Amino acid sequence: MNSNVPPSSEMDDSPLYPSFSLKFSYPLCFTRNAFAAENLTFVSEVKGDHKGAVPKLQFFIDQGVLDVNPELANAITKYCSVHELNLVDAVHPVPGGEAAKNQIQIDAIYDLMLAAGMDRQSFIVAIGGGGVLDAVGYAASTFHRGMRLIRMPTTVLAQNDAGVGVKNGINSQGIKNLLGCFAVPHAIINDAAFLDSLSARDFRSGFAEAVKVALIRDAEFFFWIAQNQQALNAREPRATHHLIKRCAQLHLNQICLGGDPFEQGSARPLDYGHWSAHKLESLTKHALSHGEAVAIGMALDALYAVEIGLLNQAACDQVLAVIQGLGFSLWDDALISADGQGNSELLVGLEEFRQHLGGRLCITLLTDIGKTLEASEIDTEALLRARDKLAVQAKRENRLARVAG
Amino acid sequence: MNSNVPPSSEMDDSPLYPSFSLKFSYPLCFTRNAFAAENLTFVSEVKGDHKGAVPKLQFFIDQGVLDVNPELANAITKYCSVHELNLVDAVHPVPGGEAAKNQIQIDAIYDLMLAAGMDRQSFIVAIGGGGVLDAVGYAASTFHRGMRLIRMPTTVLAQNDAGVGVKNGINSQGIKNLLGCFAVPHAIINDAAFLDSLSARDFRSGFAEAVKVALIRDAEFFFWIAQNQQALNAREPRATHHLIKRCAQLHLNQICLGGDPFEQGSARPLDYGHWSAHKLESLTKHALSHGEAVAIGMALDALYAVEIGLLNQAACDQVLAVIQGLGFSLWDDALISADGQGNSELLVGLEEFRQHLGGRLCITLLTDIGKTLEASEIDTEALLRARDKLAVQAKRENRLARVAG
Ligand SMILES: NC(=O)c1ccc[n+]([C@@H]2O[C@H](COP(=O)([O-])OP(=O)(O)OC[C@H]3O[C@@H](n4cnc5c(N)ncnc54)[C@H](O)[C@@H]3O)[C@@H](O)[C@H]2O)c1
Ligand SMILES: NC(=O)c1ccc[n+]([C@@H]2O[C@H](COP(=O)([O-])OP(=O)(O)OC[C@H]3O[C@@H](n4cnc5c(N)ncnc54)[C@H](O)[C@@H]3O)[C@@H](O)[C@H]2O)c1
Ligand SMILES: [Zn+2]
Ligand SMILES: [Zn+2]
Repeated sequence: MNSNVPPSSEMDDSPLYPSFSLKFSYPLCFTRNAFAAENLTFVSEVKGDHKGAVPKLQFFIDQGVLDVNPELANAITKYCSVHELNLVDAVHPVPGGEAAKNQIQIDAIYDLMLAAGMDRQSFIVAIGGGGVLDAVGYAASTFHRGMRLIRMPTTVLAQNDAGVGVKNGINSQGIKNLLGCFAVPHAIINDAAFLDSLSARDFRSGFAEAVKVALIRDAEFFFWIAQNQQALNAREPRATHHLIKRCAQLHLNQICLGGDPFEQGSARPLDYGHWSAHKLESLTKHALSHGEAVAIGMALDALYAVEIGLLNQAACDQVLAVIQGLGFSLWDDALISADGQGNSELLVGLEEFRQHLGGRLCITLLTDIGKTLEASEIDTEALLRARDKLAVQAKRENRLARVAG
Repeated sequence: MNSNVPPSSEMDDSPLYPSFSLKFSYPLCFTRNAFAAENLTFVSEVKGDHKGAVPKLQFFIDQGVLDVNPELANAITKYCSVHELNLVDAVHPVPGGEAAKNQIQIDAIYDLMLAAGMDRQSFIVAIGGGGVLDAVGYAASTFHRGMRLIRMPTTVLAQNDAGVGVKNGINSQGIKNLLGCFAVPHAIINDAAFLDSLSARDFRSGFAEAVKVALIRDAEFFFWIAQNQQALNAREPRATHHLIKRCAQLHLNQICLGGDPFEQGSARPLDYGHWSAHKLESLTKHALSHGEAVAIGMALDALYAVEIGLLNQAACDQVLAVIQGLGFSLWDDALISADGQGNSELLVGLEEFRQHLGGRLCITLLTDIGKTLEASEIDTEALLRARDKLAVQAKRENRLARVAG
């Protein structure tokens, strides 16, 4: 008997320290018309290196995407047959947007996976906006403790941000993303053709995250956006592609190089402009889209940074000009709304955010374009002055727009 | 502008390959009476290295454990107060065993977490058998995309196997562990005092996984078990501790050194004796416990290995002697049951297992004590002969037991 196995009279109650490393990687592919028969992007992600039985495939698609792409289901069926993929049943519609993100939808997806006999080697393909991707991703990550997920984001926001990372989630008890998990997708395929059917407003909304990540991480990218505003507003494919790819890349850099891909610390390093944006979304009952709210939030925090002497006025003017140049409004009246006790809702939102962080603020502010610091306090008087300057700025631009229009 | 930012006329549609590594580790501590005021094991796992606000703590405890430890809730409250831990509310009972593992219980746990304002830095403490740990673990891993979980397993099986790894799960639609995820606990604390209240049968059931992992991974440990049968049957603390610790260690070695901690491949390398055990559990409607079914499954597969010339008879005799020596029966009449069409249920179970694996069998067989190979085919006639020999063997032992008794 060796020393690993003591006689039963010894009592070794020292702890064990299991530890292991996991390496995760996945491709984010860019293509157009993924289900055209000759397009091999999708099939190569599924066939990959597997041996033995051909894995099963099941599709869950955003109803909003199906509505504007009546041929999509047929194209997928045909594509799977041409490429001998084991499509187990007809494609399944999922309600678009937040309507996807609840337990009832998750249960319906589980039922369909069970009926089709999906196992851990099977593929779930989720096609849609961030809402549908979040819901299908959550179901896929918890069924049999996790299946292989292929995401095909169909909005600008989903292709450059919501759909490219390692999170999923659903809303519950009125709380956004209350349930969810971290799960690494098998592959992501950004198909540019899906973007064609987006409304001008939805298309633009996705730009906000690109401006945000450029402002905090990549000045050159910011200036590229500034120079290419017209092409972006005209939805020119090359400009759109570059905006999406660079934004996704910067987002993925945070996940891969930021040291905390599963967000175990409390830092939210990519949340520039987001503290007030979250409050504005809820104050307007989501009349403002996430991107529209972030646009206002970024402008506000830029003006605040000027107000406390962190950022120079010229840089701030550039930030505001780009946000407006992309077609975003700088203002919403929710910025001056007050609660029942007459308190500024904006300041209430700041307090809520502080509590959310466990008592100590951590707000990203610009010191220059592409440069930031984390503030642990906010001067509320300076913040309200910044807000008032934003009102003036927004009015001036509106007047100019009216004159020009 | 540098080369990272091409002019908008270039279209670079090469994929991105995000990749990152995550290092996971957690302590598995051994103690006795964790909530005695002077015991620092628990408090040091919670206090750890955190700075700033003291994290919140919430307890979920197996009803079966509370029933036999009427002082436990008080002891925990007192312990938290002595050590200035932020216990947010009274401890919450969870039904024991499989009754914990369903969506209704999960929703109830979510409600309690929400009411207490638990966040991602908060601690959930789960105390109980494998069933309660699986359920609370699943809820904790999906609430806010994952909270910090401390597991305190209270059965031999949970302390040496079910409670020490990285999985959780609940049953759904009549399917065991249909939903769940992989999630690494913050810490595990094996408190030996909890085992005192287990019935003889529940205590013994946990030995089966130790015999199993010894047989396939560690011959010395097997011989240690053989030599210490009496001490184990007498629940002698030192022997019990060593059995649990070594079994847990071998189990963790598989997770940490086996190359696939989140089981992305289809191999189930620790499932010796389990293919038939799963069938026996369901045939007997769980009248056989998991450990009892595994004991029979291991004996059957040892005799089968002899039958096809893989294992020598003397080694097989030792295996059977240890299983019986620990008080397990080698037989259950479900082994000879037939379905409506007169087919052997055992062989039906083999086919189900094949389908479960996607068409190709992969069954661990012994070539010696501590040595295995993976069989991709089973000779069903030899299997039935092995079963019949098991019947003879079991009868002989029963007779001897009657004579001795
Ligand atoms: N998991 C993450 O890391 C992450 C990150 C950011 C945001 N999100 C989530 O993403 C969601 C927002 O996603 P979104 O902005 O992509 O919008 P969305 O998913 O809410 O969809 C908005 C609407 O657009 C429709 N739609 C989608 N694609 C379309 C297309 N190609 N043509 C026409 N209509 C289409 C949908 O049916 C829906 O009605 C939120 O739920 C948010 O929480 C997740
Ligand atoms: N997650 C994993 O990796 C994993 C691995 C193996 C098994 N499991 C799961 O573990 C479960 C089996 O766990 P188990 O064998 O620990 O039993 P159990 O959780 O099913 O509990 C059995 C009974 O014992 C009671 N009990 C628990 N501790 C007690 C104590 N100290 N004193 C008195 N009564 C006590 C419980 O209330 C319950 O009634 C199964 O659901 C199985 O699926 C999980
Ligand atoms: Zn955002
Ligand atoms: Zn087992």
